[in-house]
Order: sequence, then C-alpha cells, then structure tokens
Amino acid sequence: MSVLIVGSTALDSIKTPTAKNPRLLGGSASHAAVAASFFGPVNLVGVVGDDFPKQYLALYRKHGIGLKGLQVEAGKTFHWSGEYEMNMNNRRTLLTELGVFEKFTPHLPDAFKTSDFVLLANIAPALQHHVLDQMKQPKFVVADTMDLWLNIALNDLRRLLKRVDGFVLNDSEAHQLTKEDNVFAALRKIHKLGPKYVIIKMGSHGSLLSSPKGFFICPAYPLHLVVDPTGAGDSFVGGLMGYLASARGSVDANIRRAMIHGSVVASFCCEGFGLTRTTRVTRAAIQKRVKELEALTRF
Amino acid sequence: MSVLIVGSTALDSIKTPTAKNPRLLGGSASHAAVAASFFGPVNLVGVVGDDFPKQYLALYRKHGIGLKGLQVEAGKTFHWSGEYEMNMNNRRTLLTELGVFEKFTPHLPDAFKTSDFVLLANIAPALQHHVLDQMKQPKFVVADTMDLWLNIALNDLRRLLKRVDGFVLNDSEAHQLTKEDNVFAALRKIHKLGPKYVIIKMGSHGSLLSSPKGFFICPAYPLHLVVDPTGAGDSFVGGLMGYLASARGSVDANIRRAMIHGSVVASFCCEGFGLTRTTRVTRAAIQKRVKELEALTRF
Repeated sequence: MSVLIVGSTALDSIKTPTAKNPRLLGGSASHAAVAASFFGPVNLVGVVGDDFPKQYLALYRKHGIGLKGLQVEAGKTFHWSGEYEMNMNNRRTLLTELGVFEKFTPHLPDAFKTSDFVLLANIAPALQHHVLDQMKQPKFVVADTMDLWLNIALNDLRRLLKRVDGFVLNDSEAHQLTKEDNVFAALRKIHKLGPKYVIIKMGSHGSLLSSPKGFFICPAYPLHLVVDPTGAGDSFVGGLMGYLASARGSVDANIRRAMIHGSVVASFCCEGFGLTRTTRVTRAAIQKRVKELEALTRF
Repeated sequence: MSVLIVGSTALDSIKTPTAKNPRLLGGSASHAAVAASFFGPVNLVGVVGDDFPKQYLALYRKHGIGLKGLQVEAGKTFHWSGEYEMNMNNRRTLLTELGVFEKFTPHLPDAFKTSDFVLLANIAPALQHHVLDQMKQPKFVVADTMDLWLNIALNDLRRLLKRVDGFVLNDSEAHQLTKEDNVFAALRKIHKLGPKYVIIKMGSHGSLLSSPKGFFICPAYPLHLVVDPTGAGDSFVGGLMGYLASARGSVDANIRRAMIHGSVVASFCCEGFGLTRTTRVTRAAIQKRVKELEALTRF
C-alpha cells in the first residue's frame, strides 16, 4: 500500500564548522519520502520553483517516488540556510527564502485522495488541514510539526490534533506545548488534545511511543559521528510511515518495528549532509542495523 | 556471593519546592547497599558519627547489610543539604558538613578482603585506591565517581581507572573527562584509560554499557513523577552489582540484566525522598517492573 506524504520541498544550504554545502535537496517531504521509499510506494505532494534542479527530480524518481502531486510553479524554490555549531546540537537559521512555498496550497490528485496512510510532514498546520479536507477516509494519519507552528499557529495545530491518529514532536516541543518537564506527564496531556498515538523524539536518546497498547521505548542507532542531523526527524517519521503502509496487519501490531525502521533510516540521514547518505542506503543495510538494534537492546 | 560496597554514609537534608526533609539516611554507600540487598548479601564499609540515628542502623540490618565495616567515630556524621528546583533537574548544594567523614580511612575487616565483587561507590579516588590496596584478587571491581573528583582529584581518578574492571559515570561527567560531546566517542576514550566495562548514566534516558561484548542500551523505567532523584545513580550501580554478585555465570552473561535490575531499583529510589521509597520495595515489585521494561522495549 502506498503512503501519501505532504510537506516542504526545499533547497538547503548547510554550514558546519568544517564544511559548506549549498543548495542540497531538503525539506520535510523530501526527507520523509526518500525514507519511506525503502519500504514501498510513496506519493509526494509539494511545490518547487522553476529553478529546481533536474537532478533532484531524477533522484525522487530513482526512489520510485510518485511526483504527480509535485507542483512546479514559476519562481524560486524554498531555500533554507542554516549553520551548526561544533557539537551539532545548536542550529542557527541564517536565511529563509520562501519563494513559491509562500503561496503553496497542496492540491491532491484524485488518485491520492483515497490513500490509506497519510503523513502530514512538517508544514503550516493550515496546509495540513487543507490536505485532510481533501482526503476520503484515510486509515491512519500522522502529523509532524515544529516549534515555529507552536509559536505562530497554535490554534490551527490544536484543531489539527483532533483530526489525526498520530502526532510526532520532539521533547522540547512537547514541553513547549504542555509546560510539562516530564515526558510521560506531557504525553498524557497531548493525548487529551486528540491523537491516540503520540511519539516524542529525543534525538540521540531515541523516541518514545504512547499508544492504546501502551508505551514503547525506541532506541536510536549508536553513531560515533553526526555529520548533519538536518532531516533526521523527517526521515524517522517517513521511514515509520513507509514501513507501516507496506506491512500486513494492524497498526498496533506493526508500529514498534515501524519506529525501529524509522530510527535506522534517521541514523543514516545523520551520517551525511542533506540526503547524500540516505540516498545511497540499501534495504539490506537497513535490515543490518535493525538486527544490530535488536542485539543492542536484548536482555 | 556477597558484594562489598565502600562509599559515603551520610545524613541528607533535601529541600524541594514543596517539601523539606531533614536528616534522611543518605550517602552513596547507603543507597548502593540497600539497592544491592534485594539480590543477595551485602557488606558495607563506611563511617558514621556518634550522632548517627539508631533507627538507620536498624534499617541497614533489616536489609541484611553486614555492618562489620561500618566505623563509628566520635563526632558528627557527614551531613549534606541540597535543594532541587521545580523541574527536579537542577540541584544546588546548600551545605556540606564533612564531620567524621573528613578523616575517614576505609579499614577492611579481613573477611571482606577476599570479596569477589567490589563496588567503589562515590567517594574520593584516594580512598577508592586505599580499598583496592587491601583487596586480594577480586573478580570484578566497579568504581563510581562524581564531577567533584574530576575537578579536584583527576590524577588519582585516572590512576584508579587502570585498576578497575568497570567504571560508571554520567553523561556530563563523560563529557568533562573526554571533551567529547558524542557519548560513543567518549566511551572509546574512557576505555583507553583502563576499564573494560564503561557505563554512562543518562538520567531519565537510561544508561549505556560498552563492554568486550559490545554495547547495551538500557532503558530507564518510565516515571510520571520524580519526587527526589538523590541517590538514583548509587541505587542503579548498587542494584547492578548486587544482581551480578548473586547471579550464576559470567559477568558478560549477566551484566545486561544486572543493569536492568539496577535501573528498576533506581526508579523506585526516585519515587520517594532519600531511601524512604526504596526501603519499602519488595523483590516481587522489582520483578514486576523488570517484566514491564521487557514489554516496553520488545519489538
């Protein structure tokens, strides 16, 4: 079964203390779609400008990502530029040029409206709503978000949470949303806002699922060196949804392994700039790390 | 097999935004010994003053903790007073009265010198050396530490690391010792200092073992409310060593489950002030949480 992914498609210029990488393929939908593509068919909905490099379209296609929902508009592609400090934990935005993304309205091709699995990757909650307005009874909808929307679109986001099955956010965002320091206390409050499945991402500490079947503590794959964490969260949730859409059986039966697979794809993402490492990954390499995570957590 | 635990025995006065708890039983050896006592016999080596409450001696005895190595000296028991902020993450020391602890030299009764399992709980590295000087071929020695010793006794500590099998420290201490932000990079450097087994404690994020048999990611037990984290790290390593000493088979075969048991005892420790919750724990309650942790991490 295919997964529908709606989010941002961007060019990312990423600076670290040791390297400059201009205009890499980036954006929440790009990272999530490539991650999901390892497990089954993916359809992407986003917008790019007429400056969008042909090689990036070829890269999407190489991963079997359906591009019928990728709108190409006259103007410039969304461009984000950021800089990481030496410890890779602190990120500073240097530049945000919205370009064609400023007027983006996600139009779903008819064939996408009946998708069972929908990932509302990180974009404005109003656009996430607009996607759901077009959907016909999806089976499992997950929304991602970022601190920006908690700051400037909290009401839209709270309304969205009543419409989705799953919600993914990181620990600092969970704190921002609930004012709770304790993640388990925060999870309780987030469930009350709507979603039955809540996943809190904790970077190198892994992630935590709270679901109708209880908690799951999902480890991060051990990395000795993080080259660029941009897109790791998008890769995680993309891999998760790609795995879920391709697996037989219920969401409850599969979601733990789906998180593990998302965690592994995110680990590859961190090992290179932008999507440079992720796009060289094989399904076999993913399976190898999944097996290693099994061995790392068994007791 | 019994475990020998050497460390501080203290009275802790703990303030939080909502409560004051004067002169609770505390100290690294007290927390570690009670934690270890759930799994088998424990001998404690420490010092208290003649003001030490009889009820605390009774509490040690109730837990079957051997007190032949507990020196009672004229003077006052080590008294520490600290205050936690609302989020329970930031601790401020209000007062440190060393009392009889200032001149403490751990004398081991002859019967203790042949102990197989030795925990050098958090005390000055010079005293940890002094204990090892008296031991006859212990099988497995683990040392704990704290940031204070990294600041004022780093050379003693580095010499100690060449003499122990295992070393336990928290993530900020690992960073302080190695200057590495990445815990896996830090682990590599710490192994080069001597110990074959290195465990990095990460508070509510659990702990990480690096050993000859590879890594183990040990989860923390989910807690909705942390009442007082004082002694949680001591409880963790005490439970770990108590379990190891009581288990049949090699350290490599048992250390993962030992960490899980330590993690569970530490979770109880956090649920009450000082040792008030830990001392009401049963082995059955520990087993219940171990089973829950199995369910929480299975995929």
